[in-house]
Amino acid sequence: MAMAQINPTVGALAANARKIAAFGRRARLAGADLVLFPELCVTGYPPEDLLLKPGFVADNRACLDALAPRLNGITAIVGFVDRDGRGIYNGAAVIHGGAIAAVYRKMFLPNYGVFDEQRYFIAGAEAVNLRLRDITVGLEICEDIWRDDGPAAIQAAGGAEIIVNVNASPYHAGKAAVREELLANRAAANGVYVAYCNAVGGQDELVFDGRSMAVGPDGGIIAAGRAFVEDLVIVDIGLDEPRPRRAMPGRAGLAGRAGLAGLREVTLDGMSAAPKRPLSKRRVRPLSGPDEILAALRLGTSDYVAKNGFERVCIGLSGGIDSALVAAIAAASIGPKNVTGVFMPSRYTSEASRRDARALARNLGIDFMTVPIDAVFEKYLDTMKRPFRGRRPDAAEENMQARIRGNCLMALSNKFGWLVLTTGNKSEMSVGYATLYGDMAGGFAVIKDLPKTLVYEIAEAVNRRSRSEVIPRCVFEKAPTAELRPNQTDQDALPPYPVLDAILKAYVEEDKSLGEITAMGFDRAVAAKVMRMVDRSEYKRRQAPPGVKITPRALGKDRRMPITNGYGETGGGR
Amino acid sequence: MAMAQINPTVGALAANARKIAAFGRRARLAGADLVLFPELCVTGYPPEDLLLKPGFVADNRACLDALAPRLNGITAIVGFVDRDGRGIYNGAAVIHGGAIAAVYRKMFLPNYGVFDEQRYFIAGAEAVNLRLRDITVGLEICEDIWRDDGPAAIQAAGGAEIIVNVNASPYHAGKAAVREELLANRAAANGVYVAYCNAVGGQDELVFDGRSMAVGPDGGIIAAGRAFVEDLVIVDIGLDEPRPRRAMPGRAGLAGRAGLAGLREVTLDGMSAAPKRPLSKRRVRPLSGPDEILAALRLGTSDYVAKNGFERVCIGLSGGIDSALVAAIAAASIGPKNVTGVFMPSRYTSEASRRDARALARNLGIDFMTVPIDAVFEKYLDTMKRPFRGRRPDAAEENMQARIRGNCLMALSNKFGWLVLTTGNKSEMSVGYATLYGDMAGGFAVIKDLPKTLVYEIAEAVNRRSRSEVIPRCVFEKAPTAELRPNQTDQDALPPYPVLDAILKAYVEEDKSLGEITAMGFDRAVAAKVMRMVDRSEYKRRQAPPGVKITPRALGKDRRMPITNGYGETGGGR
Repeated sequence: MAMAQINPTVGALAANARKIAAFGRRARLAGADLVLFPELCVTGYPPEDLLLKPGFVADNRACLDALAPRLNGITAIVGFVDRDGRGIYNGAAVIHGGAIAAVYRKMFLPNYGVFDEQRYFIAGAEAVNLRLRDITVGLEICEDIWRDDGPAAIQAAGGAEIIVNVNASPYHAGKAAVREELLANRAAANGVYVAYCNAVGGQDELVFDGRSMAVGPDGGIIAAGRAFVEDLVIVDIGLDEPRPRRAMPGRAGLAGRAGLAGLREVTLDGMSAAPKRPLSKRRVRPLSGPDEILAALRLGTSDYVAKNGFERVCIGLSGGIDSALVAAIAAASIGPKNVTGVFMPSRYTSEASRRDARALARNLGIDFMTVPIDAVFEKYLDTMKRPFRGRRPDAAEENMQARIRGNCLMALSNKFGWLVLTTGNKSEMSVGYATLYGDMAGGFAVIKDLPKTLVYEIAEAVNRRSRSEVIPRCVFEKAPTAELRPNQTDQDALPPYPVLDAILKAYVEEDKSLGEITAMGFDRAVAAKVMRMVDRSEYKRRQAPPGVKITPRALGKDRRMPITNGYGETGGGR
Repeated sequence: MAMAQINPTVGALAANARKIAAFGRRARLAGADLVLFPELCVTGYPPEDLLLKPGFVADNRACLDALAPRLNGITAIVGFVDRDGRGIYNGAAVIHGGAIAAVYRKMFLPNYGVFDEQRYFIAGAEAVNLRLRDITVGLEICEDIWRDDGPAAIQAAGGAEIIVNVNASPYHAGKAAVREELLANRAAANGVYVAYCNAVGGQDELVFDGRSMAVGPDGGIIAAGRAFVEDLVIVDIGLDEPRPRRAMPGRAGLAGRAGLAGLREVTLDGMSAAPKRPLSKRRVRPLSGPDEILAALRLGTSDYVAKNGFERVCIGLSGGIDSALVAAIAAASIGPKNVTGVFMPSRYTSEASRRDARALARNLGIDFMTVPIDAVFEKYLDTMKRPFRGRRPDAAEENMQARIRGNCLMALSNKFGWLVLTTGNKSEMSVGYATLYGDMAGGFAVIKDLPKTLVYEIAEAVNRRSRSEVIPRCVFEKAPTAELRPNQTDQDALPPYPVLDAILKAYVEEDKSLGEITAMGFDRAVAAKVMRMVDRSEYKRRQAPPGVKITPRALGKDRRMPITNGYGETGGGR
């Protein structure tokens, strides 16, 4: 069996079909009888409201029909959008003998977090087992296996020895271990092999991490795909043939069992076994912690750049840790020669900032450009002198500088076709410590889902992996500052980052109330202030560019808060 | 019976409860036995991810419990979030004798368009009829009545003579007539009275239009609430009492009917009828066409401003029709003294633009401010001279000017606490003919869902209603231009607006394919270009401020397209 862990592009039907055909051919040449492709691999995942276009659904079907003959010589499970008179389904086509032999329709449709599947799809009502020569294979899609009431039990009762589950399962840090445990438990509980094929690649806010795997009936992993890259994983399940049909202990078999009413068995006609080839031994390097997150950020960034037709990016370098990390990720993702760091000093910029920004660019090997903003700032102050008459300088003048920088970066973007990467982290985005149209201006927000404390950890990982201080040590050590007025530091407005990040995790990711957060040991006034800042800055987040989700709840379609929101203001229960 | 068509604020639990108590008291004093409040009126609609916070749900319940005794003396239907061990429900509490006598749980949860109810709620499994003295009243929430398989039939079979349906039904132009027909059909088909109570008010992208109504068993309207304002509608259904229980022709009654298994009957114990008072005759002025849309835009704007704590707004006036209309709407919504028009001329600004902007401000009675941007623009050109060396002027320099204006408006916003209203229309937003962080910079996009052709119609309505040319005639007559380079007009880049708008409606709102649009009679190359512009500018729309939905499909959470989208580019089926 082969698990083709491919990287489709949403909407690019023809290109996706070509990729499926190519991996199908590789799987056949490698001696596989069955090849799995990810959930909705014909359309890419998630296609979102493209699914509402009848023409798109028809085109996806036409692509599948044209693809089927190209998969002759192997049985393939290919995710696509199925349609009937009632509506559309998240489907998996069973391609056998170069034709569509059966279609399974996903039974459980996730509609939480980043998922909106009930917006589009009708749930399938029928589990499917395939009879492939003498082996019974249960077929599932993604969420099906996460549910205790999912089809696995009925498939096993119907004789399935292998359950194959095809996925587009978005990454967040730590999810791999959860998945592994789930698959092991499902396999052991049902006495079956489980083959789990996942997509790989970046799609707007999401990254799919691959890491397909097969586990045996004892729950042990027998094959694993690589993380964050395409892969073709071959596994020999090793069932003898010809062999008797599996008798489940204490179960009377398929016929007459009321509980199996919802199970359809599809027999795939004779196809001789593929010639066996010796499997090359391979080991997949496990990936976890900061290295794993770094890989996710790199893939999310490189795919956003490439799939949207960009070749180069630019980044405003401040000399601080956030922009340093973003530049390092960009350089590693798309090559340092495709990255321009833009240093934009003002009257408040320190000499240390200039030195650190320049050193970083040199270390990374990226282009470095200096665009001083003070002359423009001076003219803005002149221009606004009359309207501002009698008012003291405040955040208006600070934001003005950030917006001049945003304008300069966008001008470079417009002139040269570069994508602007923004550098805000999750702590800042959460409390709104960022200037809309200023440092928030750009197309992709690489570290948007990284709390500031994690920014430091990932930056350390960058240096560790490069075995040098590509991000200068002093960048780690100096106090974070926006440098928009004299002697400003982030901690003028915010609690220390370790405290801030812990409160934000409790509030933003875990939906804890002020009472609960106070009970965790945080100062009530500090926690209340942080929560209020989060609530009041929703309007800024609504206008922020997308960025890579790496936590269980990112700021984006994962978290859908009203802007107009009287809950915090009226103290509702707080 | 009373229908209390109130304007709650999302999250403002205590304030909403106070409003419910006040309207309940008014209904009781008016002689009503039963008062209806809108769907989820305790929390406001839609509460979105506030619903994921256990504390919020608990607070909403505590508010309801505290509210119940304040509704003594009348039976009230109050929308709130119900919870049990399994999860949460979109609930309607029956408050009777100052206590919660029963709860109905919405059975049909919309999960399309702007709705995400399956993200949060479990569907109720049981229809509810109330026995209130000798009358049987069926209770429903919103979507329940839109479905042919909804509970109305079973409620009528169970003896309901009146069906009450409480709503938070968002407005779009033309929806009122659809609703009216639906209610008339449901009433006639089931031989019942239908009382439909809707919310009113603006919430981010949505406007609720009120227009509660009651229809008789013949489908005729017997009472109607006003549009776009709070209202208390009293209707005397006029059933005699005491009276025999209704026998449905050909139906054997409640007991033993399998089809009624899902119906619960709740008997509300004796409460003497409220003293009858004569109903004052009232007529509701019907509202349709441009006047209706104008009213929706005004309410959406004034509620966004007020509910987010702003008092004043500013608007960049260009002398063109879009900013003129936005200024007129703002002046009418929050008062001309709270509106500042900011004219920001550059080297490309015509004398006519200046004259028209000034005339408009004078006609509307709003403040007028001039902030010339050329000095700043000059400094930007100086600053970018080196990076841009060897390149010809292009869209980069044009966008720079728009972004200088955005920066000036945001500076005024930051300095004085004004909300910036943006002026882009749906045609521009659809094709991306707008500058991100430039003219798109601001908090609320008033006419974001108005195609350009409709902008002119609504602007005509403004003048007609004011019986004068508040928007100067020449503003209607001149060719639309961004004035970002010499002699520029919109039609340099776009097809004529009537053509553009027709293609956009087919593509954006109706999901038509290129083949279908060509078959409608449009030039294939023109249609393909427009569609490509729409697809390629999704990244801009993702960073746009919210604005009032007035079409069946607005650009916002109503339309969820991927940014990374290979469909158009690879020609998939086109």
